[in-house]
Amino acid sequence: MTESETSIVPRTLQVALGERSYPIHIGAGLLGDPAWLTPYLAGRQVMIVTNEAVAPHYLARLKAGLPSDAMVRELVLPDGEATKTLASVGLVWDALLEAGFNRRCTLIALGGGVIGDMVGFAAACYQRGVAFIQVPTTLLSQVDSSVGGKTGVNHPLGKNMIGAFWQPRAVLIDTDTLRTLPAKELSAGLAEVIKYGLIRDAEFLAWLEDEMTALRALQPEALAWAIERSCRLKAEIVAEDETEQGVRALLNLGHTFGHAIEAHQGYGQWLHGEAVGVGMLMAAELSHRLGWLNAGDVERTASIIAAAGLPLEAPADMGVEDFLTRMRLDKKNVDERLRLILLEALGRAVIHDQTPRELLEELLTAFPRS
Amino acid sequence: MTESETSIVPRTLQVALGERSYPIHIGAGLLGDPAWLTPYLAGRQVMIVTNEAVAPHYLARLKAGLPSDAMVRELVLPDGEATKTLASVGLVWDALLEAGFNRRCTLIALGGGVIGDMVGFAAACYQRGVAFIQVPTTLLSQVDSSVGGKTGVNHPLGKNMIGAFWQPRAVLIDTDTLRTLPAKELSAGLAEVIKYGLIRDAEFLAWLEDEMTALRALQPEALAWAIERSCRLKAEIVAEDETEQGVRALLNLGHTFGHAIEAHQGYGQWLHGEAVGVGMLMAAELSHRLGWLNAGDVERTASIIAAAGLPLEAPADMGVEDFLTRMRLDKKNVDERLRLILLEALGRAVIHDQTPRELLEELLTAFPRS
Repeated sequence: MTESETSIVPRTLQVALGERSYPIHIGAGLLGDPAWLTPYLAGRQVMIVTNEAVAPHYLARLKAGLPSDAMVRELVLPDGEATKTLASVGLVWDALLEAGFNRRCTLIALGGGVIGDMVGFAAACYQRGVAFIQVPTTLLSQVDSSVGGKTGVNHPLGKNMIGAFWQPRAVLIDTDTLRTLPAKELSAGLAEVIKYGLIRDAEFLAWLEDEMTALRALQPEALAWAIERSCRLKAEIVAEDETEQGVRALLNLGHTFGHAIEAHQGYGQWLHGEAVGVGMLMAAELSHRLGWLNAGDVERTASIIAAAGLPLEAPADMGVEDFLTRMRLDKKNVDERLRLILLEALGRAVIHDQTPRELLEELLTAFPRS
Repeated sequence: MTESETSIVPRTLQVALGERSYPIHIGAGLLGDPAWLTPYLAGRQVMIVTNEAVAPHYLARLKAGLPSDAMVRELVLPDGEATKTLASVGLVWDALLEAGFNRRCTLIALGGGVIGDMVGFAAACYQRGVAFIQVPTTLLSQVDSSVGGKTGVNHPLGKNMIGAFWQPRAVLIDTDTLRTLPAKELSAGLAEVIKYGLIRDAEFLAWLEDEMTALRALQPEALAWAIERSCRLKAEIVAEDETEQGVRALLNLGHTFGHAIEAHQGYGQWLHGEAVGVGMLMAAELSHRLGWLNAGDVERTASIIAAAGLPLEAPADMGVEDFLTRMRLDKKNVDERLRLILLEALGRAVIHDQTPRELLEELLTAFPRS
């Protein structure tokens, strides 16, 4: 008996979006059990899209969870951000049309955020929209892309520039898929989990402090709970602000600094979650300099980020001006308003646009580099 | 003083779609008057997309109707159905990103159905959706694409296979743009206008019989009224059936026969409206054979189609089997159910799936060829 077979009853979270509502099922060993996929198929035509890293581990198991009369096609693309392009979407459309699939077909995205975003966009635009099921296999995609309906691909002139809002019919999260995830990527996913605690849920943050070892050891109950709570927190925020005008910006805690790091190092050098981890610590430090967090709060933030296996220092070669330029706050934009997500307390983030520029520059000067 | 300047007050029709509601403004001389465009711009960034046939006539006039502080870019693509591709959509996205346009930009589609459908799709997917204004310059696009929100492009393996539902912020119909439309295309647009009368509005059909000469002479008041009534009838039908399950199928009167003609002749040989004109007459003939229309009704149908300058005969080289094959009713599909849009009376179309196959074959044998 494998560990997953001893596991807890799967958890289900309903994302409430009127007639576009859908469930997120979370548990160990869900893949391969027809109970979790069959109810969400629009018809018999099923196209599974995955990548070369995921397919050898989970494609056969996923197919075992489809009804025997399904007409199943599969498309296996290269792994990595380079797959998140219009060319890949074109391959999906070609495959759908070559298979003669109609409006009642279902696309299943088996993989991480790249596959989920790209396949979701393919589904959004095939015959003006077909059914789509997400089976995210990385912790980051499980806690981030499962909620919000954002799909899309990169353009040579900008990331995520082409896309659509398109909701899945269901999200199926099998925590067993994390067993083959590189530890570094598990840590990167944990950065986003910690983020939900920091911005909105002090109780969850305390739970994460207690359970971080269990999470990194892939203990199924701990994982399922962390994923469910993260998805629930994101769903609450998205429901309060579908059009991304206000509170949804809180989800960007750590992202302004983090994007600066990612962009400066060249995308793909630092994992997104690693950069966000450092960015959240920078936000906590700045919040301390504003008098909101005390030294102990910053220490707790650093400790949990470290416990997740994430770096605590910014890149050695990144100077203050490098940060300001990437944050569009360089000398050409002296009038640009600082708009940052900061922490009034652990578990309570705010959008703040009154940070004195000097304070930001002090932080950027003092923050440790490695 | 040109004729347009003597014209009537523009008509406005509101398409009711909740928060996605938008107006259709119809009149002569609207292009070039800032009153009709300015209220619908999302911000200062404006991208006009048009084609080489339309640009020399109307691009400058359209630009004169934009506010002086607008940042205007333009993209002029080749004329014709070959422009309705993902490659063209890619050119629009390239141009938007090269111009640095953000989510508050506005796309304006200046041209016929190809430009409208393609640019609408580009708007639907640029940064997950930006504002879009339609300025249709053919009668067909004015009475068809103005309502319904269907956008998209062709794929080598199928027409309109890739697309999205995306509503414009406004539709601006300047009947003066019909002055440069080839007479054949005006007639093709009139086929769709007649269709609205046949399926749902006997009074409008009678009005069209009286005013066909005025319409073909481009009399502005008659044009504006015909366009408004057509758009209103389509809007009513779409509102009753947004998801295209029921009554919306009535819009396909004449299209099953018409598509068979277009496909058999090779798309682009017959104009869509020409094929639909013959198809509507075939539907009227079949309705007569079912005992619904009398001989006088069929005669009226033929007369108004002829008065619009449209052909009344199917292609000489198209046999009964050619029709059946294109309608997917050939020998391989003997069990296929006939599902046709027919006329219970002039002004009252129905979806009918009980036509005896022999009756259809009799019609196809007897219908005149040229």
